[in-house]
Amino acid sequence: MSKNLTSRAQDYSKWYNELVVKADLAENSAVRGCMVIKPYGYAIWEKMQAELDRMFKETGHQNAYFPLFVPKSLFEAEEKNAEGFAKECAVVTHYRLENDPDNEGKLRVDPNAKLEEELVVRPTSEAIIWNTYKGWIQSYRDLPILINQWANVVRWEMRTRLFLRTAEFLWQEGHTAHATKKEALTEAELMNDIYAEFAENFMAIPVIKGVKTESERFAGAVETYCIEALMQDGKALQAGTSHFLGQNFAKAFDVKFTNNEGKLDYVWATSWGVSTRLMGALIMTHSDDKGLVLPPNLAPSQVVIVPIYKNDDQLVQITEKAQAIISELKALGVSCKFDSRTTHRPGAKFAQHELQGVPLRIVIGPKDLENNTVELARRDTLTKEIVEISVLAGTIEALLKTIQKELYAKAQDFRDSHITEVDDFETFKKVLDTKTGFVSAHWDGTAATELKIKELTKATIRCIPMDAKSEDGQCVYSGNPSTKRVLFAKAY
Amino acid sequence: MSKNLTSRAQDYSKWYNELVVKADLAENSAVRGCMVIKPYGYAIWEKMQAELDRMFKETGHQNAYFPLFVPKSLFEAEEKNAEGFAKECAVVTHYRLENDPDNEGKLRVDPNAKLEEELVVRPTSEAIIWNTYKGWIQSYRDLPILINQWANVVRWEMRTRLFLRTAEFLWQEGHTAHATKKEALTEAELMNDIYAEFAENFMAIPVIKGVKTESERFAGAVETYCIEALMQDGKALQAGTSHFLGQNFAKAFDVKFTNNEGKLDYVWATSWGVSTRLMGALIMTHSDDKGLVLPPNLAPSQVVIVPIYKNDDQLVQITEKAQAIISELKALGVSCKFDSRTTHRPGAKFAQHELQGVPLRIVIGPKDLENNTVELARRDTLTKEIVEISVLAGTIEALLKTIQKELYAKAQDFRDSHITEVDDFETFKKVLDTKTGFVSAHWDGTAATELKIKELTKATIRCIPMDAKSEDGQCVYSGNPSTKRVLFAKAY
Repeated sequence: MSKNLTSRAQDYSKWYNELVVKADLAENSAVRGCMVIKPYGYAIWEKMQAELDRMFKETGHQNAYFPLFVPKSLFEAEEKNAEGFAKECAVVTHYRLENDPDNEGKLRVDPNAKLEEELVVRPTSEAIIWNTYKGWIQSYRDLPILINQWANVVRWEMRTRLFLRTAEFLWQEGHTAHATKKEALTEAELMNDIYAEFAENFMAIPVIKGVKTESERFAGAVETYCIEALMQDGKALQAGTSHFLGQNFAKAFDVKFTNNEGKLDYVWATSWGVSTRLMGALIMTHSDDKGLVLPPNLAPSQVVIVPIYKNDDQLVQITEKAQAIISELKALGVSCKFDSRTTHRPGAKFAQHELQGVPLRIVIGPKDLENNTVELARRDTLTKEIVEISVLAGTIEALLKTIQKELYAKAQDFRDSHITEVDDFETFKKVLDTKTGFVSAHWDGTAATELKIKELTKATIRCIPMDAKSEDGQCVYSGNPSTKRVLFAKAY
Repeated sequence: MSKNLTSRAQDYSKWYNELVVKADLAENSAVRGCMVIKPYGYAIWEKMQAELDRMFKETGHQNAYFPLFVPKSLFEAEEKNAEGFAKECAVVTHYRLENDPDNEGKLRVDPNAKLEEELVVRPTSEAIIWNTYKGWIQSYRDLPILINQWANVVRWEMRTRLFLRTAEFLWQEGHTAHATKKEALTEAELMNDIYAEFAENFMAIPVIKGVKTESERFAGAVETYCIEALMQDGKALQAGTSHFLGQNFAKAFDVKFTNNEGKLDYVWATSWGVSTRLMGALIMTHSDDKGLVLPPNLAPSQVVIVPIYKNDDQLVQITEKAQAIISELKALGVSCKFDSRTTHRPGAKFAQHELQGVPLRIVIGPKDLENNTVELARRDTLTKEIVEISVLAGTIEALLKTIQKELYAKAQDFRDSHITEVDDFETFKKVLDTKTGFVSAHWDGTAATELKIKELTKATIRCIPMDAKSEDGQCVYSGNPSTKRVLFAKAY
């Protein structure tokens, strides 16, 4: 396990990159922009998947799987969607390699194995899925279709960062089909609410629910709902999006149905997704200069026990106590690992568990054997206390809930103190540059102003909050009239 | 729901294809050779995944994720592996599309966005993984590495069939690294044993454990362990493989470690996988002319309740009873669905549940309300009985276990009666053509004989069984001496 991290104050970006690698979450691979998700990072992702999957199923969704490849002719069918993704597509053009006659032992692409039609590696699956739904939908009786897919997608990004922006990433994408506009809108909002619930209850990340402006919308969407979070460096991060697609894809793929009045109509659609990017949000919201801080609800191990002993006899006794504690915790639904490795000293183990953000650490030493106690340390506050074994399990169960709540409260305090109402452009620029965070300001509703502000400040409109109140004002840049405030920020 | 299936006797292959589509398991997509796995099929796959994942974790393995793409230079590093897969590789050559100047609204591959090095879409991940392991392994303390990955892979097959052979398929691939040959061999055997256990206890499919001959080995393996199953048409199906890779990949990627004597050595490797092909095995082992038959341990719903009623009052009463039954079953760990759809008549529901292989069907009608009974029907035997509600849950719990056992026993009887010991080549050919199944025969151990037999009969050596007893004999084709029998069959 490597030594100190760069501090956040020193270089936030470097701190993040080091943390991801040193905490064994992920690393860059030999493939440009693609990451390897290491077992510890993947275990956290699996916890996220399990909770999200449960929430999707509880709201009536089923999983399915659609092809990785999208034939070019389908890809280009929905024009805006195609335009939005065309510049970052990995394209399969051949289906065979052959021995390179000029280079013994090497292979080359077989020029005789060129595909008649190129295949795009899915950057998102609306095209292939709506082409499939066409065969599944004839009447209103076939609706709604509520399907989710867990998959890998590829977007050829030029600047990549582990978890936050990678050429290949893992995600889930929901694709639903409905008989009415109203039902589709309700679905899109519902799934955005579910993302918010997941972020707040499991990731301990407060999020703002809102809709995107036209220029920030998903390519092909009529409305994009989103949840926006704030990182410790004052930059915003879009943590999930849910799109009301109108009838755009139904029209592009000619998906009509007979409604309950016997008339033909195009089907209404939504799509929604979160990705391994959430890992980046999780890391950047809670972690500190000593490493990862994990909310108990997503920690692969919520508790770790480290033994300290001078002889085998003590180790035997400690092991016995540790096993009893683990059983008791298991019965309470708390996961606990006994770190009995003989290849590492206690100090090295402490450093590793701290770096990897295990919420609670139990140390059992010779004195504890005498007193029937343990030392219990919190990762988030770095505080320790001596606890009697007789009350340990209950203490831990309660403490994990406390930690989960306090992590959320801390993130919420930070976020709330970083939403600044601003009414003039000089202050607007100053707040973005010094205080950072979200700037709540009036905007005249035009893409031109939005673009100008982005050029001048690098800030974008993160969202128009769902709960924005009506309020007469003047656009912070143009001075034109506006009826509500929107949230600007520099963003990941 | 469509009407009758083609019968197995009439056209086994057509029966299979129809069943997969009509039972809503999967269908062909717009992408050549790639399938869409529909929600019902995917729900079965999820059950398989959950059990396998549990078994992998219980034996100390962790999940991780490696890139979809393999740079050509890494792909070709292990020569035999590269040679084995080169002819069926999807190759990414470009990373961008652009507007086609000759075709408004259409896109074309941007010739300026050609990759410097082509990327192979992984047909299997040894290359990218061993290139990564090189950075993880310095000393024996870093070993073993026991990692599994759930992923999609692509092999450009010319003749594809839903689940059995598709260009893209879903699988898990374990990749482990060890300090000693012995440990790696033990791991490869252990994982083959786990596959056998899964096939027998969950899929209710009896399998024969064995090793492959050199010509049937995985490209790059030193030894390939496998489990072989027998389908109802007498053809064998390889259901899982586990490879001892020796030091081949460690040498190709220069992965050395310092052993506990301080000496440098190459690392020993295994890899092992099962795929959505298992779905094909499951379908073909148990199903009948009326549709799918599912072993209870893998059925998305083990029980379905269909109400029959003449008025709303009856429906209310039936619904109440159904809810009580569902709660009672849930407490016993039995999954049960109440099919209260008003869009379908009972007859249509019966046909659908039969086609989709729900193990048990409960019908509650007006008479049952009076008598406090239900009609309970088994999908596998198509038998029915009247059961008192007071004993229903217990009856069902026991019956599901019975069905699981009987499906296995039936498949085992069929399989055992289709292993024929043969000592001369005329009988060999005749058995393969008429009785079908496995032929247990002596083989002289040469690839030449194996190839000749394949050319003459289309049968391959499925495996040399782990429990093959020593027995002096003569090769069924060449007459040369042999010390044990091997299993031949025509195979999927």
